[in-house]
Formats: sequence, structure tokens, C-alpha cells
Amino acid sequence: MTYCIGLRLNKGLVFMSDTRTNAGVDNVSVFKKMHSWIIPGERAITMMTAGNLATTQAIISTLDERSKAPEDRKPSILEAPSMFQVARLVGETVREEIHGSTIEGQEADAAFNATLILGGQIKGSPPRLFLIYPEGNFIEASAETPFFQIGETKYGRPILVRAYDPDMSYEEAVKLMLVSFDSTIKANLSVGLPLDLQVYENDAFQIKQEQRIPVDDPYFNQISTGWGDALREAFRSLPAFRF
Amino acid sequence: MTYCIGLRLNKGLVFMSDTRTNAGVDNVSVFKKMHSWIIPGERAITMMTAGNLATTQAIISTLDERSKAPEDRKPSILEAPSMFQVARLVGETVREEIHGSTIEGQEADAAFNATLILGGQIKGSPPRLFLIYPEGNFIEASAETPFFQIGETKYGRPILVRAYDPDMSYEEAVKLMLVSFDSTIKANLSVGLPLDLQVYENDAFQIKQEQRIPVDDPYFNQISTGWGDALREAFRSLPAFRF
Repeated sequence: MTYCIGLRLNKGLVFMSDTRTNAGVDNVSVFKKMHSWIIPGERAITMMTAGNLATTQAIISTLDERSKAPEDRKPSILEAPSMFQVARLVGETVREEIHGSTIEGQEADAAFNATLILGGQIKGSPPRLFLIYPEGNFIEASAETPFFQIGETKYGRPILVRAYDPDMSYEEAVKLMLVSFDSTIKANLSVGLPLDLQVYENDAFQIKQEQRIPVDDPYFNQISTGWGDALREAFRSLPAFRF
Repeated sequence: MTYCIGLRLNKGLVFMSDTRTNAGVDNVSVFKKMHSWIIPGERAITMMTAGNLATTQAIISTLDERSKAPEDRKPSILEAPSMFQVARLVGETVREEIHGSTIEGQEADAAFNATLILGGQIKGSPPRLFLIYPEGNFIEASAETPFFQIGETKYGRPILVRAYDPDMSYEEAVKLMLVSFDSTIKANLSVGLPLDLQVYENDAFQIKQEQRIPVDDPYFNQISTGWGDALREAFRSLPAFRF
């Protein structure tokens, strides 16, 4: 499993992903699930992946190879004129890779699946945030649905729904995401530290903050223990039930 | 979907279930998912069901028919000598019903599945709480795992894990379960009010409290709005993140 969140704030975009991959509980590894493509001053694109690791790595590598040498850039996410076109391109790549991995007659096998969160900005239009499905189609975040989760989304969702505010600072957003990750990590062994964190500020066309939150990070531990106490206190503060 | 919780306290057992069933979002009904068999002073057995409604109703009806007329009571959950034997009997009934619904060659079809929480006490032994799988086998709650959830278990799990305490009063336990239900109901349309609630007190061999929490129940609404505020407050109380 995996857990990633992409959050749209009024100020910019915040991304967080875990790094644990597993093929069974006895085969656990650390892989980066957050990838960026930047042309400073012109575009900044970030992508997070969930699903079959071979598929997601193939998707990233294909997008990467197409963006390396200028003569090989068509179609490339570094040349697409808008974030919508980038999402299209990524969606097509997802579909190709999943189809390519799927032997005839195994079309329904879910094992090659991949789901992606794609966010960023290209000069001349506002930042955008997309969720790309294994079928290659996608949806965009809006004021009503200002964040996307992929992977193990359920445990960490209630706090996101309750505490998200589009006017939050980046620091508050990171705190919120860490609480959501903590609930998920406590419940699902296949989601684990270290975490990758990235902040994109509107109209910056470069990454504002990029950070890895390591295993045994003191702040994460503080959140993790503090959240238990805070939750119990919140629970106590509610009016008592009477039969 | 469904959501049910069975909680083992030091004082007794508390059960809560929703009542929504659906075959698609355009086909939603209310059905009771909590069922009891009582011989006052001798045994009290409560069961909650999740899964295919036809299967779970068949299981309940089969168990029910076997417990009605004394001459037809073998094997019956009203005659089994221990809660373990009751769980065995229920497990066999689950397996039979699922197998009976499954046409040859559709054995892998998950659509006839059923998962159950079974709890209660028979004179001469302590109260016990079981989770019964569609395969008919089962596990028992213990000090380390003092509660079971079935159906849509994930959204409402973090608060249970954090705030459960075996020494809680029944009132606190009900409050905790309502918070857990609220998080689930907010996230999954297929879980809905009214809720059924039942309290069994150790060595009572009858139901202590039984109650339906209706749609628009004032206390549930108070919990639901209060929990949002309490969560935001809990979140604010955590130390701030700094890059």
C-alpha cells in the first residue's frame, strides 16, 4: 500500500507521500513516490504515485526519458502548454504502461494498477491539482474538493475533512498532513516513514520547500504522541451520553 | 456497506450497528442488523451482521428457526453449552448459507459473503466476544484486541484505538462508538442512521439497555457537530511545524 496527499491551499500546493512499498509483509522496501520536473521560472510539476511499483516506475521513467533530450521531447511534460495537457499526457502514459504490462486475457487483473496525484503550474495559468486514475482519465481539485488522497485513504480522511482550511499556512498544512499520516501509519503496516514533503508556492515556478521526514523524526513523534492525548481530551470534552 | 462495533469492557459488552443496506446508491433500505437470543437468567446472545443481506437474513432465520421449537433445537444456539460452541454453530451456519447461495463455478464470488460479530454469556462462564469470518472460522476478543468492527471499519478506527479504555462506563463507551459512527457516516454514504444500541452487563443474562438512535437524534447531532469543533481544537493544540 501507499499513502499520499495532495492539498490545494490559497497560497499554493502541498504534497506528502510515504516511501514504503511491499510485496507481502516479508518483502518491504523504501522507494521514493514523489517526483518533480522543473523549468525554473516557467513550470513546476510534481507527481506522486500509488499502485504496482513496476508500473509506477515505468510511468515515471517514460515521462522522464521524454523530458531529457530536447529532440526526444514530443510529447513531453516539459513542453505541454498547460497542466491539463500534462495531465492528459500522464494519463496516456499510465494507460499505455498498464496495458503494456497486461498479458492478453489478464485485462481485469488489478495487480498492474497505478493511481497518481499530479500538481503544479505552468506560466500563464494558475496552479492545478489532478487525480489520475488507472484508466488514464482524471479529475481536478476544486473549492469543494480541495485535496486528493491515494493509496490507503480511509484512516486519515476524517481529520483532513474536519480541519482543512484553504487559508492555512504551509506549516499548518504540514501539521495536518502529519496527523493524517500518523492515523494511517498506526493502522496500516504497509504505510511507513520516511515521508517526503514538498511545498509549491503559487507563481514561484520552483519548489519552495522539499524535505524528507525520517524515521524517528522528533517532530513526527511529538505529533504522534500528542495527537493521542489531544484526541482523548477532545473526546472527553464532548457532552456525556445518557440512556 | 454496514458498520458495526462490538466492544468488550470490564463491566460487560456494548454493541452498536447501523441499519442501512444498499444495492447501489439508488436502492437503499433500512434493515435491522442486530439480533438477540435470550433465556433470562441462563444465556444472552447478541449478533450483528455485515455482508450480503440475503445471506445474513438466511443465517439469522436458520438460527432462529432452530431455536424456536424445542424438538427442533438440535443444534441450537439456545442449547449449545458454551459461547465457543455457539460461535462454532454460527460459523457452520454461515458456511452453509454462503455455500448454498454459491452456484457451481462461482465459488470465488464475494457477493454472498457475510461477516458477523457475536457476543454474549452463558451461565457458568464469562462473557465472550467473537468475530466470525465468511469462511465460518472465528477469532475471539482479548485484552490486546478488545473490540471488533465489521463493514466499513477504517474511518472510525483511529478514535476507537486512541480513546478506548476497558474501565469505561457504558455511557462513555456509547459516546465513543457514536464518534466512530459519525466519522464513518460522514465518509461513506452506505452507512446511515438509525443506529441500534445494546448493552450487556456481565452475569446479567438479559439485555441491560436496548435503544434505537433515530435519524435526527439530538444527542447524535450534538456529538456530530461537537466532534468537528473538538477535533479542530485538538489539532490547534498540537505544536506547530517549522521548516
